[in-house]
Amino acid sequence: MELLSISFKEIMSMEITVAEVMKVVENGFRLKGEGKNEMPAKIGIHPRHDCFIHAMPCWMGGDVDAAGIKWVSGYPPNQAKGLPYITGVLCLNDSETGIPKAIMDANWITAWRTGAASGVCARYMAQPGSETVAVIGLGVQGRTNLMALNEALPELKHVRVFDAFDEQVKKYVTEMSSLLPHLSFENPKNIQETVRGADVVVTCTPILAEPNRFIRREWLKENALALSVDYDSAFD
Amino acid sequence: MELLSISFKEIMSMEITVAEVMKVVENGFRLKGEGKNEMPAKIGIHPRHDCFIHAMPCWMGGDVDAAGIKWVSGYPPNQAKGLPYITGVLCLNDSETGIPKAIMDANWITAWRTGAASGVCARYMAQPGSETVAVIGLGVQGRTNLMALNEALPELKHVRVFDAFDEQVKKYVTEMSSLLPHLSFENPKNIQETVRGADVVVTCTPILAEPNRFIRREWLKENALALSVDYDSAFD
Repeated sequence: MELLSISFKEIMSMEITVAEVMKVVENGFRLKGEGKNEMPAKIGIHPRHDCFIHAMPCWMGGDVDAAGIKWVSGYPPNQAKGLPYITGVLCLNDSETGIPKAIMDANWITAWRTGAASGVCARYMAQPGSETVAVIGLGVQGRTNLMALNEALPELKHVRVFDAFDEQVKKYVTEMSSLLPHLSFENPKNIQETVRGADVVVTCTPILAEPNRFIRREWLKENALALSVDYDSAFD
Repeated sequence: MELLSISFKEIMSMEITVAEVMKVVENGFRLKGEGKNEMPAKIGIHPRHDCFIHAMPCWMGGDVDAAGIKWVSGYPPNQAKGLPYITGVLCLNDSETGIPKAIMDANWITAWRTGAASGVCARYMAQPGSETVAVIGLGVQGRTNLMALNEALPELKHVRVFDAFDEQVKKYVTEMSSLLPHLSFENPKNIQETVRGADVVVTCTPILAEPNRFIRREWLKENALALSVDYDSAFD
């Protein structure tokens, strides 16, 4: 049996766009809505405090008929060691025989699939004409989420960003303003000002055993769309 | 990041004995008993009728400190296609960083860990002086289970075997009597006679959505140890 191995570099070299990922993710949501998939709630292990490794098996039916699993870890202490917070592998199996066909780096798909999910949500749930987004937490998800929101919101003009680390803010604004030169970037001095008046607020902060839940409901504009990429870590 | 890939052939070439596997499995049971592990109930997908792919993550603590997952499929229709019933991969991660370190074929470990678990059970739960075992279902598990029972039961002399396919019986008896020449093999004409008077009965039949449960309690000797490798598929 041949097991194809696909690295992060090889996936990157395919230059898959966020629009393509959003198309696939939207089709996935549709199949799930039609009951044409099997995706048990994920389970995981926690070998260290606040660290997880999650098992996320899924079968997509319909015209997709794809079976596989993502096995992905999130280790906050890695960042201080110069290692990525997220690492993992994705195994794709032949739906007809169950045989593993490929092992792929799961870092790329975690970054982009997650961002694309926010984009698909925003396409259907954000107020029409949304112009301003607030991004809290400026790591990988802060980047892919903004790329996807930019795809989903044709009127988007202003981006307000916040991170606990100033260095992260500088790097983020430099990178993202070069990728999305039509947007203006602002870094308010606190979170309350960052979310004030934003049409869409997306939080991409670490998922802790005891979340801070630092954003209050009354800070948000009426009918703002709140996208909690970090589950309930950020919203009170 | 380097991901080591270890094939079935490479694992076979290590010539790991069933006694070694039983030692590790027994230590694993002990750590679990001491609460020094994390092993959520497995989840899975079923892309075809009576077929499964199971996600089995686990962290073993104590002196082991090993984290990983087995992602393993069972496809009954594969046998008619000349493909293995069981295929899969095992991913081992660094407990300290979560980073995947190795992808290994999971076929070998599935065969031997499962057999070894029966061996450890028999060592502690079979009647002392057990001389006769009955093996129902003569595939891979029928083989590794017998190897492990032979390790666990120092007085073992007689093996009664049964399988729905005569061809399987012939192959099994030829192979196993050559590996275990001190044992006598017998192939009774039905299951009731196979289990009659046996000190240990082990069933390794396919796991079906609607199990047959063909063995009745009253057929078993008093205090016989029943090892249900196929969950509740075989015992009424």
